[in-house]
Amino acid sequence: MSYNNLTLHTDKYQINMMYAHWKQGTMHRRVVFDMYFRKLPFGNGFAVFAGLERVVRYIEGLSFGEEELRFLAEQEENYEPAFLEELRQFRFSGHLFAVREGALVFANEPLIRVEGTIFEAQLIETAILNFVNYQTLIATKAARIKGVAPEDTLMEFGTRRAQEADAAMWGARAAYISGFHATSNMRAGMLFGIPVKGTHAHAWVQFHASEDEAFQRYADSLPDGVTLLVDTYDTLKSGVPGAIRIAKELESRGKRMRGIRLDSGDLAYLSKKARAMLDRAGLEYVQIVASNDLDENIMLNLKAQGAAIDSWGVGTQLITAADNPALGGVYKLTAKEEEGEWQPVIKISGNPEKVTIPGVKNVYRIVDRTTGKAEADYIALSDETDVAKGEAIKLFDPQHPYLHKYVDDYEAIPMLEPVFQNGELVAALPDLEDIREYHQTQLALFWPEYLRKLNPEKYPVDLSVKVWELQKELIRRFLPH
Amino acid sequence: MSYNNLTLHTDKYQINMMYAHWKQGTMHRRVVFDMYFRKLPFGNGFAVFAGLERVVRYIEGLSFGEEELRFLAEQEENYEPAFLEELRQFRFSGHLFAVREGALVFANEPLIRVEGTIFEAQLIETAILNFVNYQTLIATKAARIKGVAPEDTLMEFGTRRAQEADAAMWGARAAYISGFHATSNMRAGMLFGIPVKGTHAHAWVQFHASEDEAFQRYADSLPDGVTLLVDTYDTLKSGVPGAIRIAKELESRGKRMRGIRLDSGDLAYLSKKARAMLDRAGLEYVQIVASNDLDENIMLNLKAQGAAIDSWGVGTQLITAADNPALGGVYKLTAKEEEGEWQPVIKISGNPEKVTIPGVKNVYRIVDRTTGKAEADYIALSDETDVAKGEAIKLFDPQHPYLHKYVDDYEAIPMLEPVFQNGELVAALPDLEDIREYHQTQLALFWPEYLRKLNPEKYPVDLSVKVWELQKELIRRFLPH
Repeated sequence: MSYNNLTLHTDKYQINMMYAHWKQGTMHRRVVFDMYFRKLPFGNGFAVFAGLERVVRYIEGLSFGEEELRFLAEQEENYEPAFLEELRQFRFSGHLFAVREGALVFANEPLIRVEGTIFEAQLIETAILNFVNYQTLIATKAARIKGVAPEDTLMEFGTRRAQEADAAMWGARAAYISGFHATSNMRAGMLFGIPVKGTHAHAWVQFHASEDEAFQRYADSLPDGVTLLVDTYDTLKSGVPGAIRIAKELESRGKRMRGIRLDSGDLAYLSKKARAMLDRAGLEYVQIVASNDLDENIMLNLKAQGAAIDSWGVGTQLITAADNPALGGVYKLTAKEEEGEWQPVIKISGNPEKVTIPGVKNVYRIVDRTTGKAEADYIALSDETDVAKGEAIKLFDPQHPYLHKYVDDYEAIPMLEPVFQNGELVAALPDLEDIREYHQTQLALFWPEYLRKLNPEKYPVDLSVKVWELQKELIRRFLPH
Repeated sequence: MSYNNLTLHTDKYQINMMYAHWKQGTMHRRVVFDMYFRKLPFGNGFAVFAGLERVVRYIEGLSFGEEELRFLAEQEENYEPAFLEELRQFRFSGHLFAVREGALVFANEPLIRVEGTIFEAQLIETAILNFVNYQTLIATKAARIKGVAPEDTLMEFGTRRAQEADAAMWGARAAYISGFHATSNMRAGMLFGIPVKGTHAHAWVQFHASEDEAFQRYADSLPDGVTLLVDTYDTLKSGVPGAIRIAKELESRGKRMRGIRLDSGDLAYLSKKARAMLDRAGLEYVQIVASNDLDENIMLNLKAQGAAIDSWGVGTQLITAADNPALGGVYKLTAKEEEGEWQPVIKISGNPEKVTIPGVKNVYRIVDRTTGKAEADYIALSDETDVAKGEAIKLFDPQHPYLHKYVDDYEAIPMLEPVFQNGELVAALPDLEDIREYHQTQLALFWPEYLRKLNPEKYPVDLSVKVWELQKELIRRFLPH
């Protein structure tokens, strides 16, 4: 099974449309698609863009192999053999622009812009959405969790509840981008260089004749930085006292226990009691790790009650984004080439927020030079130069245009950077540590009111006057009469 | 990147425990683990077991390669080189028993039983849970959807919102097991032989000068069984009339349009109006396909209003199991070998439903010979012979033992079948069509009150008297005094 070949990781209608374009002689016509989402997940004030590395590797690997072509030849559509021959030669030859992984991003702004033939642009839609929707969702969920415990150690522990193997692995990476410190997933550690952490399971304790024997044998085997799970029988009566005995014994050998882990019961109560017991034994350095269906709301509540937890193992709620398990990213046609010129395209909808923003566009993050803080994101046509030059621009609310101001003392950071040009990878993909650091600098760019977990202020994503007028004009032109 | 090698698709604590068992000389001690879940998802009356084929392929492929060993050598635990050498030789050598894919299963009964060394049994826990939790979850969600539209065509359309690539593919397979008819995911089609369906996107229409031109060109390209998306501009004023013109024109060429697709608006209203328009044009055979954030509740409501929908494309809600995005399957130690004998093991918890069922156990589905319907599932120790022989057994409620009856006119179907014996695959994995058919025979085995979507009757999962007494005895013995 060519499990590694993701070329057919696409919806059939993409192949059908490719076939129809091939039949109709329109396959080489150039088009522009924008990838964006319409609504922030979790009621959060921002999302954290992730998934680009996966998209890049996928595009580099695009190739219809023999197994793929044989499968296509058997489809009920009876694709002509010459079409399959065309596919055999297929390579991505277009341009792709994207926001950097780790960037804070917002609704209705392009995160990826694909310029290429309609043939190739259709093929890659499904996979781009599949990768970016999931990874951006998890990076955003992780950022919410990070937001309530910015000083604590955060570990992604979700593999057993993740939605299959890819989710476990790419979700671990997304969480790391947003400031998690480690994962339990060894494969994610190997493939991405994420630190991997783990303690032991209840089965280790049950396997032995007593908890004491289990602790002793575990500490003997892994004496450096051992963490003991203390809740198998009775956390405060046997688990913590047993762990303290081991810690003292390790001290006598010049070693230090790293921590104890609580995995059940009331984590606020137990952690405070355990902390006091450890401190009384002179074990201030032994950390308390908590796990058990945690998420940012539970953690905020535990911390509000003074829970003495240093390190959090977060599983199901993070890796499945359980309170909002899908990001609704879309990929929409915004322009098509007509006689060598880009013609903007709009999609009208009875649902106003589903009307697309037409044209070939860039996104700029407008940073006030005085405060160093982001003021708004600004979507302009790619041939508008005033914003790139730092000339005065008008920021206004597209729904309520009378709410406006002019700004001129700003830096305009172009958010969409070239990744592929004519099918060639032109961006050096940053390594994961740099992405993680970039994410922190991104957070620092925003006023705290946009970063609040609950009811954040809405960060403005504005259109240039030209984009706004173009949209209005096309709505008039294409509205059904 | 050894992306295909799933051997490190495990939590670090498994490796740490394996290392500690290796250090302590206990790695060859034999143990039994049960995989089961404690709570049915979605408030459903049953779950549909899925994931076994994935588990089998994973176990067959287990092997620590050079990249894995190099990565392990760099871990902060400083695993000794002789341990890594042990891993280099590692192959799964145990037994694995499992329920068949497609079976209806219930809370607190073993779905998989692993008998092997503690060394190998720990390694495979994480991946088994990751695969079975997700695939069983999606098969169960799909069964709920199938339950409200048993006569309609059901298509899995969720790839772009799935939680990464594996979820898209294995989720499509799980949905097919529970009676879905097709997927949009080409790769799932190729790898599993699932029929693949697709129409065209709004982008096809927008790309052309008019909807008429777009329809004409699509039908010209794919004249056999074309389905047209009719909601790009105005469903009833332009989309449906345009599709009817194409259908009539296809008729004049001896062809038949397959359907039209509605992807927005009120699907009950629009489908009824569209049906009437099609019928008036003599196009009774043209089917109506609906999509747009569907799930079983919306479908039930649409059908209750007489929506004229023949075929449903279900995406996000199915592929992410959005209303319950994780199944909490667990894997618990139930016995360990002591001097050549199995010693049952229990895990006590302050939370009564978390107390494990000790011992090496089988599960029987007790089918009444008179009605042909399943009466209860019955968990017995593997050395209990009365149930296997069909002798009279006592069925009772473990929580309320006075509620009991004796049955003797039954067939006892053993649910756990051997899959691996001493590391060898001994089961012929059924092909997907057989799994799908087996699922239907399973559904027929149950009274409808267990299959209702809302507030189903609870199907009994009973313990044999011996298992029940063993559990009580071990609770007494291990309860902290």
